[in-house]
Amino acid sequence: MPGPISGLIPAPHTPFHPDGSLNLDAVALQAELFRECGLPGVFACGSTGEWPMLTLDERRRTAERWREVGGDSLKVVIHVGGYCQADSIALARHAREIGVAAVSSVAPGYHKPTTIEELIEFWVPVAAAAAPVPFYIYDIPAMTGVSVPMSEVIRNAKPRMPNLVGLKFTNTDFVELQELIQLDGGAYDVLLGYDECYLGGLALGITGSVGSTYNFSTPVYRRVEAAFAKGDFDTARRAQKLAIDMLKTLKEFGLPAAQKAVMAMLGVDCGPSRLPLRNLPLEERVRLWERLSSMDVFPRPLRKPE
Amino acid sequence: MPGPISGLIPAPHTPFHPDGSLNLDAVALQAELFRECGLPGVFACGSTGEWPMLTLDERRRTAERWREVGGDSLKVVIHVGGYCQADSIALARHAREIGVAAVSSVAPGYHKPTTIEELIEFWVPVAAAAAPVPFYIYDIPAMTGVSVPMSEVIRNAKPRMPNLVGLKFTNTDFVELQELIQLDGGAYDVLLGYDECYLGGLALGITGSVGSTYNFSTPVYRRVEAAFAKGDFDTARRAQKLAIDMLKTLKEFGLPAAQKAVMAMLGVDCGPSRLPLRNLPLEERVRLWERLSSMDVFPRPLRKPE
Amino acid sequence: MPGPISGLIPAPHTPFHPDGSLNLDAVALQAELFRECGLPGVFACGSTGEWPMLTLDERRRTAERWREVGGDSLKVVIHVGGYCQADSIALARHAREIGVAAVSSVAPGYHKPTTIEELIEFWVPVAAAAAPVPFYIYDIPAMTGVSVPMSEVIRNAKPRMPNLVGLKFTNTDFVELQELIQLDGGAYDVLLGYDECYLGGLALGITGSVGSTYNFSTPVYRRVEAAFAKGDFDTARRAQKLAIDMLKTLKEFGLPAAQKAVMAMLGVDCGPSRLPLRNLPLEERVRLWERLSSMDVFPRPLRKPE
Amino acid sequence: MPGPISGLIPAPHTPFHPDGSLNLDAVALQAELFRECGLPGVFACGSTGEWPMLTLDERRRTAERWREVGGDSLKVVIHVGGYCQADSIALARHAREIGVAAVSSVAPGYHKPTTIEELIEFWVPVAAAAAPVPFYIYDIPAMTGVSVPMSEVIRNAKPRMPNLVGLKFTNTDFVELQELIQLDGGAYDVLLGYDECYLGGLALGITGSVGSTYNFSTPVYRRVEAAFAKGDFDTARRAQKLAIDMLKTLKEFGLPAAQKAVMAMLGVDCGPSRLPLRNLPLEERVRLWERLSSMDVFPRPLRKPE
Repeated sequence: MPGPISGLIPAPHTPFHPDGSLNLDAVALQAELFRECGLPGVFACGSTGEWPMLTLDERRRTAERWREVGGDSLKVVIHVGGYCQADSIALARHAREIGVAAVSSVAPGYHKPTTIEELIEFWVPVAAAAAPVPFYIYDIPAMTGVSVPMSEVIRNAKPRMPNLVGLKFTNTDFVELQELIQLDGGAYDVLLGYDECYLGGLALGITGSVGSTYNFSTPVYRRVEAAFAKGDFDTARRAQKLAIDMLKTLKEFGLPAAQKAVMAMLGVDCGPSRLPLRNLPLEERVRLWERLSSMDVFPRPLRKPE
Repeated sequence: MPGPISGLIPAPHTPFHPDGSLNLDAVALQAELFRECGLPGVFACGSTGEWPMLTLDERRRTAERWREVGGDSLKVVIHVGGYCQADSIALARHAREIGVAAVSSVAPGYHKPTTIEELIEFWVPVAAAAAPVPFYIYDIPAMTGVSVPMSEVIRNAKPRMPNLVGLKFTNTDFVELQELIQLDGGAYDVLLGYDECYLGGLALGITGSVGSTYNFSTPVYRRVEAAFAKGDFDTARRAQKLAIDMLKTLKEFGLPAAQKAVMAMLGVDCGPSRLPLRNLPLEERVRLWERLSSMDVFPRPLRKPE
Repeated sequence: MPGPISGLIPAPHTPFHPDGSLNLDAVALQAELFRECGLPGVFACGSTGEWPMLTLDERRRTAERWREVGGDSLKVVIHVGGYCQADSIALARHAREIGVAAVSSVAPGYHKPTTIEELIEFWVPVAAAAAPVPFYIYDIPAMTGVSVPMSEVIRNAKPRMPNLVGLKFTNTDFVELQELIQLDGGAYDVLLGYDECYLGGLALGITGSVGSTYNFSTPVYRRVEAAFAKGDFDTARRAQKLAIDMLKTLKEFGLPAAQKAVMAMLGVDCGPSRLPLRNLPLEERVRLWERLSSMDVFPRPLRKPE
Repeated sequence: MPGPISGLIPAPHTPFHPDGSLNLDAVALQAELFRECGLPGVFACGSTGEWPMLTLDERRRTAERWREVGGDSLKVVIHVGGYCQADSIALARHAREIGVAAVSSVAPGYHKPTTIEELIEFWVPVAAAAAPVPFYIYDIPAMTGVSVPMSEVIRNAKPRMPNLVGLKFTNTDFVELQELIQLDGGAYDVLLGYDECYLGGLALGITGSVGSTYNFSTPVYRRVEAAFAKGDFDTARRAQKLAIDMLKTLKEFGLPAAQKAVMAMLGVDCGPSRLPLRNLPLEERVRLWERLSSMDVFPRPLRKPE
């Protein structure tokens, strides 16, 4: 693998106190759960981490805390992206200074680039500010509205971004996914961002996957991996289907809020989400618990909310 | 498998004379090529078959010809769909009378159904007119603009469409694909309609795939299948990637026109496409031939256009 | 005006018997209502007329009936479009033979043209089959999925379609609308297809408007016209707003079904819609009547459904 | 009018030095041009002002400079929106403290609100931080991807946002536009954000229009206004069409870059745009000048770029 991370990588929630202020004490609890699940690192301050709702200072403090807690045993990738290039450059520099394993950055999604060239030009100084720390492009068109063929972006960007090692591909275009995996003979890390498609991704040759459900349901994905490794596709498909069922249940309640509720059920209280995300009242959290508690996907028993 | 067809199934082009009139003599040449490639059947009068540009009479005559030429060795699935329910019912009845293996029908894409119930009601009498011949739903949202979760459609439709055996799923939603494959313990045929994703489909458990490139490039997909069966994913991915490269080349020239040009290069002249599809002038066909002739994906050498 | 129709033009519903078969007797009732409202003509067999759900034979018979009933006092425009060019040519020829005032045709929306040239080529022989009867392009991207700048289409098409006189523009792009109105110094009829925007259209200079609500609520649009002509914008806006309120009410019940229900309340029973359109049960029709009956927009009192 | 601004309101470009740093000296030149054109105020730090590419500090400094330069003769509306609520609250407070005429804020477009309620909750504390300074919602779905009926938002938001006085509606939905204008008997300022549709907006009753082309082509819009006021629609339409022609020319070159190039031709050098926006090389600026210089829409002769 060209870059520092591979396999299952959780995108941790940024923990808040009930009043909405940053609760960095909870990071240790998150890290403890991830180590328990044998996870190799984290992709922090990304979409699950509610980066747009964090001030720059909060992003820096969160990154520092992950670095501190991660130590030598959890690799820390920090998302530094945003729509203001100057801010992203500053965050990238900070991330490098605190010694992260890699940085990543989204495409600017308000004034959108109209050519691949403009998109690359936007990223070049961000990657440069992080260098020699490895840089991952973060492609997530459903959020940014920027939808361009990433294989072409990477092909053109690499000469100007030497620390470019791959991308987080939160995109359902499986043709482009295959292009990316085969690009230059497998020269780039391709980290799939759709947990629902992990099995398909393994078959096509992804190097890893970054996702929000890896925060709290690693065991079911380990079963997918193990069965795939043995060529037992029936078992792999059933495990993957169970993960999909869990996700659909979460979505019925509203994905971000339901995920934070599950974290609390696992003893890792990450608090509420920030607006415009909603939060689940107790009654709904209890109903969610009733739906999920018997699913064999979690690393710990789920505590009933109260 | 619940239905009559599985594996690789070509969606044959409807052959026309240079003046645009129907050329049913060419069907025998198509069938010969398919038998040579060991293909089990055809899905005729579908999108590749330019169904919207055919009159009802032409659709009937084309179906009859395929039935005649197919005989006992090629299973014939006929697409009878359209936006006028009465016409589809008449075509379904005709298909049953001539003894096809199965029928299929698209969703109405002009006045679009606003509920799953309306969509099912539209299909019920079409499937009934074909019964007891098996019925496949044909889901192709990029063409019809009708995008609804097909697992929910099938779950609700089955009690009222006893001959429903599965669907042709020309859709990039891989989460829904997994739902469909697992539906009722694998009770339905799921025929993927994206040739570019055949390997991913195999990994997820599709029963077959209906596609336009199976008309002329079966060998490369056989390599995907064989490698997958042995668990040799590296080889499978490379073969699939080659198929994607071929497809991208075809798309540069305009997919439908380029495909008909390739058929002629294989000695199976299916003539021009009908409007609003374009056709390639000789010069472009020669350029296409130059791009394709060295690709190791075709069952016969490609003849240079002249 | 370059073409034969202008002002308010209803797009009549195709009337069916309760069992869904064609009920051409009702056409006389429709025509009577339109004459009562001072309407100059009709745009028949269009989207409101459920053209995709009609067989070719039904489309011919409906056209003939309108021609018969229309006589000298109602100009009859017939929509002959569809996705099979040969069928459209046949319908265009038929329309010419029965002496219609104009024909019109949609863009092919399944295999969509990828260039303006392909779109024009599709229409050329259809218009030719109607010539010298005037031809209107029918632009309705929400239904066909074909979205191209119509001013550019017309500019390029006119030399090859001498009987092209304008278009029915069922499109919310008001910039393109202004282009069309000014095109070649106002050389084309621009018939707006959004009843909700009639006042805006008048201000920008449309020559007329074809719509479904002109079937049953002409009086409110007459008030818009009269106030606009006097420069009394306050009154014009209030009348237009009332028309919008009516439309929103209809949409709550499902637009096509609700419109046919209103026709029946006016004594012009056009029967049910065909699938995939739904129909309103008595209870809902009564609720609709309760909501509408006090609105001052209809040419006759609304009869309570029973 | 319920709020402090009406009529034509330019959305000024944020001026940068050639090296990309903020050039607040140019604000005086912009203000001078606006006064020369009789414009009543500005809507600063909006989309034309490249808000996403500005740091918070730069947004504050730009607002302060506009307040200073605007004095008593130019009303200053400051856009304080962004995707981080805490940042927007801080900017709103700052804007109030420096004495702006009004503030405005976009919808959060990354994690998008899934209900109207979530959207309102996001805005409530932003508006509260500005109170009693009037607050305008800024609806611009093409940039944010947040598309909800604004009349319903305003109806529900007003009780909780007493300083809500209207919205900047950069949206092509003319039905919703009419709803907004008529809402509560005209209780809200509706500032249209599509310069191309100014005439249509006047006919429908907008209170004003905020746009990027009002920076440099006020005279043509004054002709639209004057002709409309006299009921001379022919003249009004021709003037509006000329404005559209100018805009289409600008778009051929890339809208933001071309607009900044025009400002420089008017003697108001606002410098380059920030990434991901591109800038025009001299050769293209000269070509643009050749295309525009004879158009009768500008308040000053255009200087040839050199």
